[in-house]
Amino acid sequence: MVVVLGPNRYGKAETRVVQVTRHGDAHRVKDLNVSATLSGDMTEVHLSGDNSAVLPTDTQKNTVYAFAKKHGIGAIEDFALLLARHFVGTQSAVRHARVAIEEYTWERNGSNGHSFARAGRETRTCVAHVDGSGERVVSGLRGLVVMNTTNSEFWGFAKDKYTTLTETRDRILATEVAASWRHADFPTYWDKSHETARWALLAAFADTYSLSLQQTLYAMGSRVLAECPEICEVRLSLPNKHHFEVDLSHFGLDNDGEIFLAADRPYGLIEGTVLREDAPAAGPAWE
Amino acid sequence: MVVVLGPNRYGKAETRVVQVTRHGDAHRVKDLNVSATLSGDMTEVHLSGDNSAVLPTDTQKNTVYAFAKKHGIGAIEDFALLLARHFVGTQSAVRHARVAIEEYTWERNGSNGHSFARAGRETRTCVAHVDGSGERVVSGLRGLVVMNTTNSEFWGFAKDKYTTLTETRDRILATEVAASWRHADFPTYWDKSHETARWALLAAFADTYSLSLQQTLYAMGSRVLAECPEICEVRLSLPNKHHFEVDLSHFGLDNDGEIFLAADRPYGLIEGTVLREDAPAAGPAWE
Amino acid sequence: MVVVLGPNRYGKAETRVVQVTRHGDAHRVKDLNVSATLSGDMTEVHLSGDNSAVLPTDTQKNTVYAFAKKHGIGAIEDFALLLARHFVGTQSAVRHARVAIEEYTWERNGSNGHSFARAGRETRTCVAHVDGSGERVVSGLRGLVVMNTTNSEFWGFAKDKYTTLTETRDRILATEVAASWRHADFPTYWDKSHETARWALLAAFADTYSLSLQQTLYAMGSRVLAECPEICEVRLSLPNKHHFEVDLSHFGLDNDGEIFLAADRPYGLIEGTVLREDAPAAGPAWE
Amino acid sequence: MVVVLGPNRYGKAETRVVQVTRHGDAHRVKDLNVSATLSGDMTEVHLSGDNSAVLPTDTQKNTVYAFAKKHGIGAIEDFALLLARHFVGTQSAVRHARVAIEEYTWERNGSNGHSFARAGRETRTCVAHVDGSGERVVSGLRGLVVMNTTNSEFWGFAKDKYTTLTETRDRILATEVAASWRHADFPTYWDKSHETARWALLAAFADTYSLSLQQTLYAMGSRVLAECPEICEVRLSLPNKHHFEVDLSHFGLDNDGEIFLAADRPYGLIEGTVLREDAPAAGPAWE
Repeated sequence: MVVVLGPNRYGKAETRVVQVTRHGDAHRVKDLNVSATLSGDMTEVHLSGDNSAVLPTDTQKNTVYAFAKKHGIGAIEDFALLLARHFVGTQSAVRHARVAIEEYTWERNGSNGHSFARAGRETRTCVAHVDGSGERVVSGLRGLVVMNTTNSEFWGFAKDKYTTLTETRDRILATEVAASWRHADFPTYWDKSHETARWALLAAFADTYSLSLQQTLYAMGSRVLAECPEICEVRLSLPNKHHFEVDLSHFGLDNDGEIFLAADRPYGLIEGTVLREDAPAAGPAWE
Repeated sequence: MVVVLGPNRYGKAETRVVQVTRHGDAHRVKDLNVSATLSGDMTEVHLSGDNSAVLPTDTQKNTVYAFAKKHGIGAIEDFALLLARHFVGTQSAVRHARVAIEEYTWERNGSNGHSFARAGRETRTCVAHVDGSGERVVSGLRGLVVMNTTNSEFWGFAKDKYTTLTETRDRILATEVAASWRHADFPTYWDKSHETARWALLAAFADTYSLSLQQTLYAMGSRVLAECPEICEVRLSLPNKHHFEVDLSHFGLDNDGEIFLAADRPYGLIEGTVLREDAPAAGPAWE
Repeated sequence: MVVVLGPNRYGKAETRVVQVTRHGDAHRVKDLNVSATLSGDMTEVHLSGDNSAVLPTDTQKNTVYAFAKKHGIGAIEDFALLLARHFVGTQSAVRHARVAIEEYTWERNGSNGHSFARAGRETRTCVAHVDGSGERVVSGLRGLVVMNTTNSEFWGFAKDKYTTLTETRDRILATEVAASWRHADFPTYWDKSHETARWALLAAFADTYSLSLQQTLYAMGSRVLAECPEICEVRLSLPNKHHFEVDLSHFGLDNDGEIFLAADRPYGLIEGTVLREDAPAAGPAWE
Repeated sequence: MVVVLGPNRYGKAETRVVQVTRHGDAHRVKDLNVSATLSGDMTEVHLSGDNSAVLPTDTQKNTVYAFAKKHGIGAIEDFALLLARHFVGTQSAVRHARVAIEEYTWERNGSNGHSFARAGRETRTCVAHVDGSGERVVSGLRGLVVMNTTNSEFWGFAKDKYTTLTETRDRILATEVAASWRHADFPTYWDKSHETARWALLAAFADTYSLSLQQTLYAMGSRVLAECPEICEVRLSLPNKHHFEVDLSHFGLDNDGEIFLAADRPYGLIEGTVLREDAPAAGPAWE
């Protein structure tokens, strides 16, 4: 038996960096969670423990903090690219860098310029890849919980001997959106592009009269592509957060779409990709 | 040795109920997590397993759903009182009912009346107690994360041989507010009272030039009491979410309150009570 | 309106300390999570931000590490008492110290003396209080998940118009034990006492033919008191982790106590205290 | 712009099924979390909401429970294959089924045959794929936390201007193993194969004198392949759970590998694949 090393990577995960910028009394906060991953000529470290090609993960952490100071933090996509280029560009053994960033948003609290409150449950995300074949960026969000209280049906589905579900012409449709989108071209303003894509997801969810969560998923992905020419592919993972109408007939009460049990598990899980027919090859973008 | 039964209680925890109210095209969503706890003449069930005094927790769950339909869900405090009164009033063995409710808020998504997005990371809370001695309500919130990027100092503290902390005249002050407040009188509008108390907490956090998190805590509690005459006592639990200024001198960079490491553990934890001198006895309100 | 400061405390929560002791090749690991809480003459810090009475929480953290080195870590109760006595004994403003410790256990991995694997999902706990009135220790555990697949019934319960639950003469009884016990006298060996109490909980759960979870709770608490003369009071919090027999009749299958759905929420929650009639006053032990 | 549907799948996630088998007084418990995912001719449901190809996720849940009864639950790999074959074999629109199962283990509590306690923090896992190209099974585990208190060094690594880490000849090496392994051939006994692979992981971790976590990773993967001829590829994800030696010199104390701070974030993350050179193509096994 001959054993070989396959794909591998290493890095520092979840470096938490907060940058405060002071424009007179008006402060600005950027709050990130940065995970770097490097790969390249790493056979020796696996086989013999020779670390000469290994830039320590501690150094990667330091670099995040130093770069936050030297370059500032603008759009997370720019910061991710900056870091990824640095690792590939300065370490000869590093052939590929992947930098993933989560951003937590804050909004102003009160009228002074330095008090903030965490906004929302949602996290903005990005993953940048840099290697000899080029640069790729996937942006996204997760934790966006949405619900339509009507305009959702589910009927006409396949049935077998284990099917007991009844058809419905009116149900709650709720999900927690995890969405990622790949860029064919880098936008001039990442923040503006993100804002537009996010708005498209929300609008499509609200506007779609849904016969299935799959249909809603496709509508959401298509809307992002329609609104954002720089985006070529959208991936969505949508748990179907079931809201079951409670049977109140035992208590002499009807329940016409009014009282629901919000269930935890199990849940439906709908995953899908919507892309332009002419989308360029993804390469390592989704890894 | 004689062994006896001490304080005890039982109930159904975390019944998840969602009510949709339809005013034409404009829907309204109430999304609650209800935990009921009963106590009373429960010695026999503990000693011999005689369940004749035990209203099943399954029945408590059913009651939550039935009451949501029969009475609707307005302010969570009213709904909690309604349930607690019911259990004490209809089950002779039940002497005391405690009903705790968490509410998750949704905001409209888009321009139609039936699409919603979960708002914020914050949870509104209440606990109602009903027994022979009367009715008590504690309201509150948790998960409200706030940060001041300046106007916080920490110096002049006690030092011993294990003290290495340096004094600071400018630091980030960040916390995740968990606050509960007890009512001397029930307000006419629970929602209005909650809104005012919440605003007072946020305003006091923003406005206080802080020499310690304890000082901020006291300012926050006092402000609630000043703004809300119906509230007689405020309890706050404030983790000090440390943001450490990163030492960048190794890299030839200064760091004048710009780049911070957001730490997880350990964290400071400041807990305190602010109350009116003439606050009535709390009884079981905080249990 | 006169506003006053009520009960308050502060400290450093969740200091994670690991001690490795080397007896030749045979190492020993102690893995703790320590939370210290101090209170005393703390009015000024709340009112004016004068920190002269405040020993920084950072110092408390340092003390944990320094004491781990100076004194070593034996039973967590001893380490908690050591720390609590130190804070009360050396800081004049500190009248009361509470030290809570969680311990995570490791077992040996393989035959060498230095490789370990985390054992179990269970956490050992203790809380020590030291103040002018004396010393109190509560020990306990949490995360102990147990299940009886038979010898559990539930019938003869109170019924009202919202009751739909059917009686059962055979069900699964499962819970996640959170138990704490108060000591009237400090045992010579904390570890031995903990082991005996833990064994008593498990044995009582296994041996009790249960007509209700309350009955099982009382049996568990009583057994601890019977086995451990140094313990005077036991508090238990037992979620009823429902396992519902799945109705398979739609598929032409019977289900005689074989296939169950393990539910998440809602769940029953049974809480109770079992104590010796002559237990001394608890003082702040449970705070 | 032409928009198309890319890869997609849907299913019911996290169906919790517990099977109790009664051999006289000696009961046996199987406790699973089953997630099914189907894909195939699903274009119409995405484009128009036509559900005629969609077997409801509710039916998938029912099938899990019915199959648990009809076929019993043996090794999770067998149960996953059984379900996956069923969905592909009975639904013409379903071309591919993926069934992932987590298993939680219980051990006997006491001497009777019906009382159990949850064992360990570790979860056994598998993923089975069935489609026209054949059947593939990946087995694994996660949540296995291990630590070596010596025999770990880290030095000779690459350095740049952001490197501050000092070299060490003796450190704690701790990780939480997430491992998955692909089978070239299905073993006669899945349980025996899992046990051997798990043992190999633990033994390699304990026995390897480590110069880097990458070296340990490779040793762990290689050992599995050496011990299990039916396994052709191993993937490991190993967070480096840092234990930092605490600097106690401020307090006049040395610290020679005795007192450590167990850190949360950031953490190193080492991921890698070890495989036989002649491993067959993976196909969809890892998806």
